[in-house]
Amino acid sequence: MGIVVTDIARADRAAVAQLAASGVATVHEAQGRKGLLASYMRPIYRPALIAGTAVTCEVAPGDNWMIHVAVEQCEPGDILVVAPTSVCEDGYFGDLLATSLIARSVAGLIIDAGVRDAATLTEMQFPVWSKAIYAQGTVKETLGNVNTPVICAGALIQPGDVIVADDDGVVVVARAEAEAVAGKAKTREANETEKRKAFEAGALGLDIYAMRERLKEKGLRYVAQKDLG
Amino acid sequence: MGIVVTDIARADRAAVAQLAASGVATVHEAQGRKGLLASYMRPIYRPALIAGTAVTCEVAPGDNWMIHVAVEQCEPGDILVVAPTSVCEDGYFGDLLATSLIARSVAGLIIDAGVRDAATLTEMQFPVWSKAIYAQGTVKETLGNVNTPVICAGALIQPGDVIVADDDGVVVVARAEAEAVAGKAKTREANETEKRKAFEAGALGLDIYAMRERLKEKGLRYVAQKDLG
Amino acid sequence: MGIVVTDIARADRAAVAQLAASGVATVHEAQGRKGLLASYMRPIYRPALIAGTAVTCEVAPGDNWMIHVAVEQCEPGDILVVAPTSVCEDGYFGDLLATSLIARSVAGLIIDAGVRDAATLTEMQFPVWSKAIYAQGTVKETLGNVNTPVICAGALIQPGDVIVADDDGVVVVARAEAEAVAGKAKTREANETEKRKAFEAGALGLDIYAMRERLKEKGLRYVAQKDLG
Amino acid sequence: MGIVVTDIARADRAAVAQLAASGVATVHEAQGRKGLLASYMRPIYRPALIAGTAVTCEVAPGDNWMIHVAVEQCEPGDILVVAPTSVCEDGYFGDLLATSLIARSVAGLIIDAGVRDAATLTEMQFPVWSKAIYAQGTVKETLGNVNTPVICAGALIQPGDVIVADDDGVVVVARAEAEAVAGKAKTREANETEKRKAFEAGALGLDIYAMRERLKEKGLRYVAQKDLG
Amino acid sequence: MGIVVTDIARADRAAVAQLAASGVATVHEAQGRKGLLASYMRPIYRPALIAGTAVTCEVAPGDNWMIHVAVEQCEPGDILVVAPTSVCEDGYFGDLLATSLIARSVAGLIIDAGVRDAATLTEMQFPVWSKAIYAQGTVKETLGNVNTPVICAGALIQPGDVIVADDDGVVVVARAEAEAVAGKAKTREANETEKRKAFEAGALGLDIYAMRERLKEKGLRYVAQKDLG
Amino acid sequence: MGIVVTDIARADRAAVAQLAASGVATVHEAQGRKGLLASYMRPIYRPALIAGTAVTCEVAPGDNWMIHVAVEQCEPGDILVVAPTSVCEDGYFGDLLATSLIARSVAGLIIDAGVRDAATLTEMQFPVWSKAIYAQGTVKETLGNVNTPVICAGALIQPGDVIVADDDGVVVVARAEAEAVAGKAKTREANETEKRKAFEAGALGLDIYAMRERLKEKGLRYVAQKDLG
Repeated sequence: MGIVVTDIARADRAAVAQLAASGVATVHEAQGRKGLLASYMRPIYRPALIAGTAVTCEVAPGDNWMIHVAVEQCEPGDILVVAPTSVCEDGYFGDLLATSLIARSVAGLIIDAGVRDAATLTEMQFPVWSKAIYAQGTVKETLGNVNTPVICAGALIQPGDVIVADDDGVVVVARAEAEAVAGKAKTREANETEKRKAFEAGALGLDIYAMRERLKEKGLRYVAQKDLG
Repeated sequence: MGIVVTDIARADRAAVAQLAASGVATVHEAQGRKGLLASYMRPIYRPALIAGTAVTCEVAPGDNWMIHVAVEQCEPGDILVVAPTSVCEDGYFGDLLATSLIARSVAGLIIDAGVRDAATLTEMQFPVWSKAIYAQGTVKETLGNVNTPVICAGALIQPGDVIVADDDGVVVVARAEAEAVAGKAKTREANETEKRKAFEAGALGLDIYAMRERLKEKGLRYVAQKDLG
Repeated sequence: MGIVVTDIARADRAAVAQLAASGVATVHEAQGRKGLLASYMRPIYRPALIAGTAVTCEVAPGDNWMIHVAVEQCEPGDILVVAPTSVCEDGYFGDLLATSLIARSVAGLIIDAGVRDAATLTEMQFPVWSKAIYAQGTVKETLGNVNTPVICAGALIQPGDVIVADDDGVVVVARAEAEAVAGKAKTREANETEKRKAFEAGALGLDIYAMRERLKEKGLRYVAQKDLG
Repeated sequence: MGIVVTDIARADRAAVAQLAASGVATVHEAQGRKGLLASYMRPIYRPALIAGTAVTCEVAPGDNWMIHVAVEQCEPGDILVVAPTSVCEDGYFGDLLATSLIARSVAGLIIDAGVRDAATLTEMQFPVWSKAIYAQGTVKETLGNVNTPVICAGALIQPGDVIVADDDGVVVVARAEAEAVAGKAKTREANETEKRKAFEAGALGLDIYAMRERLKEKGLRYVAQKDLG
Repeated sequence: MGIVVTDIARADRAAVAQLAASGVATVHEAQGRKGLLASYMRPIYRPALIAGTAVTCEVAPGDNWMIHVAVEQCEPGDILVVAPTSVCEDGYFGDLLATSLIARSVAGLIIDAGVRDAATLTEMQFPVWSKAIYAQGTVKETLGNVNTPVICAGALIQPGDVIVADDDGVVVVARAEAEAVAGKAKTREANETEKRKAFEAGALGLDIYAMRERLKEKGLRYVAQKDLG
Repeated sequence: MGIVVTDIARADRAAVAQLAASGVATVHEAQGRKGLLASYMRPIYRPALIAGTAVTCEVAPGDNWMIHVAVEQCEPGDILVVAPTSVCEDGYFGDLLATSLIARSVAGLIIDAGVRDAATLTEMQFPVWSKAIYAQGTVKETLGNVNTPVICAGALIQPGDVIVADDDGVVVVARAEAEAVAGKAKTREANETEKRKAFEAGALGLDIYAMRERLKEKGLRYVAQKDLG
């Protein structure tokens, strides 16, 4: 505890932009269904959509001191990722810290804990994904770390990784995989656009994805009510 | 497992329309306070209000294959009801499946699990009540059933039953009881309209419902602070 | 059980007004970080902000009879606070009771249980903080108390205390402390306004709050990635 | 509400005995992986194992009146199944009711709510599966039903159905299916006994169940650490 | 914060002894069904039964410093009651603190948070009721209070109040009411002993409590299956 | 997905033995309060204590196929660690798989999901830490990974890392740190033994840890009841 890494490498900006365009569900699929944070991580207002590079911050329960340390390490386009060392719903973050992050062009906050000043954050349109909205205040007594790997809401996040967050939740893409995943996500989107047209025209997934044969092989049976017994 | 019933009987359309007009809380009361799904079933956007006839779909955890099978069984005015065989929050359903259901004039989705593409579903105004919004992808490996009875969020739903869903949650009305319940709901609404006027005029529930006598019999005592000891 | 106290003392109206202007998070801090209700108490629509004096109502699980008794004890500017004697999510309260409270100029409802008619309550703009939105109906069989001390969502509330509720949750201020806390809250707000300007101008919390020295004393180390090993 | 069915048909006693011998997990598998109650239904002491025929009892939240009505309907070998009409953890049942059930040779209690007198129930060795152990008292004001179908902890239970409960939880077998399921469970057990010997001798599931080919077809790859990249 | 009250009055020892003899469920009933802590407060081993006078301790989340301060205030026969200022499951307490409390003849610990060294505490037979068993360590940085009123697991506890804890959970009896409640509990027990004999002899609650008439008035109907439709 | 790493490096056996001797709470402290799995990971029987080297297994929800693949990779002294790719409580593991692991001298199972056959596993004294005990069966359709890094109950576990599990929960120690942590844990234990004697002799933590001065500096005040106001 008590480490601040000052020279982290960040994922490629173009890849970040492409991942933002794809959204969480598509990015999650494109990288092989991994990297999602827990489903309790919800946006404080909707709709909201951001992507950026992670500055990580590990904090003690009920103690937001290290967030102030982390802010200084943030650059434009970053997303601040805060993980407590044990389960906590306190309100670590409010409108003053949001003002500070906006002044540094930070894209948003991901926090596996609570935030407060939700009405003001919404007015400011500063996007936050959190476990709770809760006014409970915190102290400033115990050191944590900035820009070391953290587990946030069940996902491993390394500093500099890409975070994508939207109404569906939050996903992390490893820095080294950002460009490859961005490419796959783009392809996937194009593919979905075509399928969307087929669905709009009334085609069935059963036919679009050619599922009927395999369903039959597995033993699917179509029966009338009277034959059920 | 692996059964699709293709010729289900559906509740009377006029009854469905009346039940939609009454809303969940009134329908629940009109049928004797039964049929509610669990309180964790929430609309993905508000306000939202639908009623329709259930096409049921039982799925394996983390496996959305049978939803594609169920779509084909849906007719205009139906509501798709999806229940996993064990607890699961994965994102079984997204904008492509919604597009497919809209193409078939399906009224909405009730799912005791997660959905994704929440922002797009909201833009499309396709109403969904779910346990979670979560991007987690699913596989297509295991058979389930379509149009067999399911327990969804703690309520027994038979195919063809009426589903009513609004901001208060979701209620099911048995097909055979739809018309009777619709009638009672209508009467109840009329009754509430009158009471609303009395409340607006400043009357008290104590008097409107003639409660004072019975409260006194039960022992209710009005006291001053100083007499409390 | 079965007590209604009819002559409660209420907190000073001017203090209530000042506390409303400060909001939940500031009031919570101003009174020494106490008095918050549990984080599961959420507004049924957002934004919402009220302050008022508590009329308390203790109810049996699944039984809303005493709410009708409590309504009569409410005066303009009061907030009705409902606490069940054991954990319950039933829908104790709907649009008719809201109509009755509005007719008496009650500011809102705080209930450690469920409410229903959420869409109508939202249209009426009657503010409610609750544990759940749930249509489940209740009976009228068992007595409770009105205007005795209650524990609501983990906080002790005495009749006449000040309740402040906004998007961040709900806080209670003891009647006797209302004016002192209101004063401190006002001072705190002024102080925050200044700080907000500094943050907007790009200053860091590390400097605004002069944290660097103490962080160093505690052992905070700034390191390069290569030095981490 | 307010119905007591007095002449229910009960499942075959021999089938009940066989199902008891098989245990919950085997019975659940034998009937096609259905009928389990939710995982929060836990025995108040372990080990415990019972099987019997269901007498069902639907109760209001916080109201145990109908349990007294249900006791009279119980016969030797029955299991009392109690389901509240909305979520409740109150202590509906204690040592006096247990004494009454023991006097009637009832095999145990399944309750989707709380029980109390846990220490005494354990001493008496009266087996209970419940959602909670909680001392909270209940009232006797509101009617429910006895021996009508209930949904208990997410499973549909008809009066006379077989209940099997052990350290793994609770499963229901429909009355009409009891003998067939008992037969399948017995076969399954015999099959497992053989497999157990193979496992004890060091054989692998991969070989016992001949999985290697299919895993390879699906694409499973065995790699050395250095080849992972 | 930062207050230690050194001269608290304690409830009468004879009343404490009587309340211990009655147990949690009986005491809860005897004082009018109030004072129970939340159902998640569970003993770390069973059976366990204690009663004593409360020394209260309010702690910051993840910070057990004040427990050391509280130990010094404990006298023989006390029970230490620990409540965090916000929700926390950390392991505040282990075998060393238990050794210290045993040396002072403290009867046990009630903590709305976690404890650790559960195996050793069990061997030592030091009784603990907690929200969790969890090894997570805590810091010693932030002041709290000792012997001020706390809300612990949803119940208001004043220093010197009686705590009774057993396998059913935890109940608090106000100091001033201890003797009266102890008397009522004793009467209640005697009454239950008689009823237990009647139940053992096969009598029904319906008759022992003379419920049949009132059930009939409420509309209870006994019907045969064939009459249900 | 679909990777099995066959040649993982394992932590030093002597370090594992020392870590077992220290137990979870001490190991967690010795490595700087990190590495704990979530508090919901509980032993299926108590007391239980194991340490070993991790063989990791990532599984699909409701699908235990890969566990059979993982068993073959286990060596004497290993602990099997199973993590589903999304939240699941199904019963992935029962007595047959336990028999297979015992035949391979595996020390135990850590699974962020459910297990079944709890009574038999207890009789066999095969130690398991799990999220649930639940009979729900699983399928064998979808590939996962063996011996790749997993996040299990909120902790990152690499194959070959040391797992220590006891009544307090589960902690992971990175393979490369095993010896250093084992050394620190041993020192810590020795230190605690001395302190235990002081506590037994009636010394206070306030004095043993020399806390009085610092508490005073922070502002702790000892007051009489009458001075509280």
